[in-house]
Amino acid sequence: MKITAIDPFYLRMPDITTAADGTQDTLLVRVRTDTGLEGWGECDASPLVSLAVYCCPMSHGNIINIRTSLIGETLDAPDDVLRLSEKALRNGLDIQQIQHAYSGAEIALWDVIGQRLGEPIYRLLAEVSGTSDITHPKLPYASVLFGDTPEATYRIAVGLREQGYRAAKFGWGPMGQFGEANDIALVKAAREGMGSEAQIMIDAGVVWGSDHETAYRRAEAFAQFSPTWLEEPLAPDAIDAYGALTKRNPRVPIAAGEGSNTYRTAEDLIVHGGVQFVQIDAGRIGGIMPAFQVRQLAEQHGIQYVNHTFKSHLSLAAAIHVFATNPDFDLLEYPAAGSELSQRLVKNPFQVESDGMVRVKDLPGLGVRVDTEAIRPYLAPVRIAVGSDTVFEQESL
Amino acid sequence: MKITAIDPFYLRMPDITTAADGTQDTLLVRVRTDTGLEGWGECDASPLVSLAVYCCPMSHGNIINIRTSLIGETLDAPDDVLRLSEKALRNGLDIQQIQHAYSGAEIALWDVIGQRLGEPIYRLLAEVSGTSDITHPKLPYASVLFGDTPEATYRIAVGLREQGYRAAKFGWGPMGQFGEANDIALVKAAREGMGSEAQIMIDAGVVWGSDHETAYRRAEAFAQFSPTWLEEPLAPDAIDAYGALTKRNPRVPIAAGEGSNTYRTAEDLIVHGGVQFVQIDAGRIGGIMPAFQVRQLAEQHGIQYVNHTFKSHLSLAAAIHVFATNPDFDLLEYPAAGSELSQRLVKNPFQVESDGMVRVKDLPGLGVRVDTEAIRPYLAPVRIAVGSDTVFEQESL
Repeated sequence: MKITAIDPFYLRMPDITTAADGTQDTLLVRVRTDTGLEGWGECDASPLVSLAVYCCPMSHGNIINIRTSLIGETLDAPDDVLRLSEKALRNGLDIQQIQHAYSGAEIALWDVIGQRLGEPIYRLLAEVSGTSDITHPKLPYASVLFGDTPEATYRIAVGLREQGYRAAKFGWGPMGQFGEANDIALVKAAREGMGSEAQIMIDAGVVWGSDHETAYRRAEAFAQFSPTWLEEPLAPDAIDAYGALTKRNPRVPIAAGEGSNTYRTAEDLIVHGGVQFVQIDAGRIGGIMPAFQVRQLAEQHGIQYVNHTFKSHLSLAAAIHVFATNPDFDLLEYPAAGSELSQRLVKNPFQVESDGMVRVKDLPGLGVRVDTEAIRPYLAPVRIAVGSDTVFEQESL
Repeated sequence: MKITAIDPFYLRMPDITTAADGTQDTLLVRVRTDTGLEGWGECDASPLVSLAVYCCPMSHGNIINIRTSLIGETLDAPDDVLRLSEKALRNGLDIQQIQHAYSGAEIALWDVIGQRLGEPIYRLLAEVSGTSDITHPKLPYASVLFGDTPEATYRIAVGLREQGYRAAKFGWGPMGQFGEANDIALVKAAREGMGSEAQIMIDAGVVWGSDHETAYRRAEAFAQFSPTWLEEPLAPDAIDAYGALTKRNPRVPIAAGEGSNTYRTAEDLIVHGGVQFVQIDAGRIGGIMPAFQVRQLAEQHGIQYVNHTFKSHLSLAAAIHVFATNPDFDLLEYPAAGSELSQRLVKNPFQVESDGMVRVKDLPGLGVRVDTEAIRPYLAPVRIAVGSDTVFEQESL
């Protein structure tokens, strides 16, 4: 079959705040083919900047937009997805945003191929890579922001516990802003609210920059509350600082990786940063296949791969296919408090099952269906003109 | 003084081809202040994608556009540039394109501060870093594309020699496309055309991907023509392949780095890729200061820093300030065959002086003046609407 259309859609809530909540807007990408099959993907990235990568005028042979690279191409097998990814990334060699933008298209191509072949994506990945296709359930951890105070954090934690969560990650907000005592009080509140049996994770939201000494002291101070990890204590680029931190073996393991915009960035973080959990967003790193390659690298290095997902369950579907077949990679970031937009985006979201676990869907493609009716009110139509050319006009949803 | 306006301008030639010629279009950034001072910078990046980073609606606290970060801010001293860069990059943490886009603004901020203080930028850098402010001339190498054949390449080389160039880099086009014999014939033609006294450089334009074995064989085969370096034989991300290549010490030194979108990418290439020449574009890596930091890293590692410049002499001005004060870093990429647009862009381009050398201008700021009259015909006005909001409307040039 042939690719006939590649359409990005910018969706957003009416009011956007500075809170570190990635579900306030999104960019969806729809791929259509001449057989009537269509696939969907979601980017975790600036919607407008990424959309521009779908329509930017050519600058030369290394700046060619994604639509130009894909429309009219043949799409019949997983190898076509790999071939088209190589083409789109090569054509966009000098577009820094190419991975963030292309992620949505790549995921949508897998969705199409999975539907075409009647196979879930995790099984196609198993075939392509010659690995097991037996899936394993994941323990979902609710991913929420800290409350403004320890008391507010405690109440959030109690609420999650009452909803049945056995794991929860608390992040950003006040962490690192008001000194060590407050940082410790926040973690203590999360632990007490979730109870001693639960897993808690702490996300410092890059707050200590390259100050690995403070990051080390906090990791040691938090150890009394046994968090599963301390996430992003440092800036994504501060690889040497990560290396200095992890070499001291703090009693709380270090997690990072959501800022991996390329496979190499993740590899750099694993090999030279020494993290024990690598957190990859398939909606940023260029899609499902580069995320899968990082999963394989994590397996080689004996560290744990975890998804980063702070968008809708469309992103969650892409995320879970990547590592559904590894039983040791048993934690799943599960967006628990997203915007209405993110909650309405798919018709069949992932439920936490009676055993407290989440499972990949054994359905063709991603296995989730976009609810176009429900999300239409959130569409922000985009129009871009360059000179006398309209380079982007909104297709209907 | 206060920053009152940040205006990007998309300029382009009437016809754009797939040739690896970066001068076919450009994005300029103009910074205006309440004192009437204005500064300019140029990005080497997709103009539309980068422009979107100046106006994209906020997604959350990590996706805030550059205009929002800068307009209304105080700008009185070099420290303000550093503070504003930190702010803009932090606000754009989750915008992959942030460095490519911000480069133009950062360069323009230095241009303003230099004018304000009556100092050339190289001197401000020397003050900030506590290093020498004595400048040294650079040997310009003409940066041109290979001809389609060895014969055409020979004629190009003879032409450059007749123009007085003592160094020239030949790149892209047929290199790596038609087998080893043709690759060797191309290099031989470049050497014979330029003569035995000249320096020649070979730019393979990432053609061998991660195939470091072929890259090694070519470097060895080219050694008989004594090129100064073999540039970008491999993909920018193929750091391990670069490491494998450089560990074998091919007789032609390896150069790379124009794809460095962040300081860390350049550091990774130097430390783990083992390149002997690192080529940085201040119009991609986030501006003059991160380029200067890579220069300092090159000094520490005993390798040579070279500019990457394939835009106008506005970019060349930014480039030369970065390493004007290092006498050992004596080569300058000098755009010799750019588009009309790139040649008309500044009123006072850098001339090759009677001794065959190019010198930094001892004038305030960048030291070059944008010729707004000359470039106005090339302006492609951009208009971007998101929902009912016009998020970008073209300011006049």
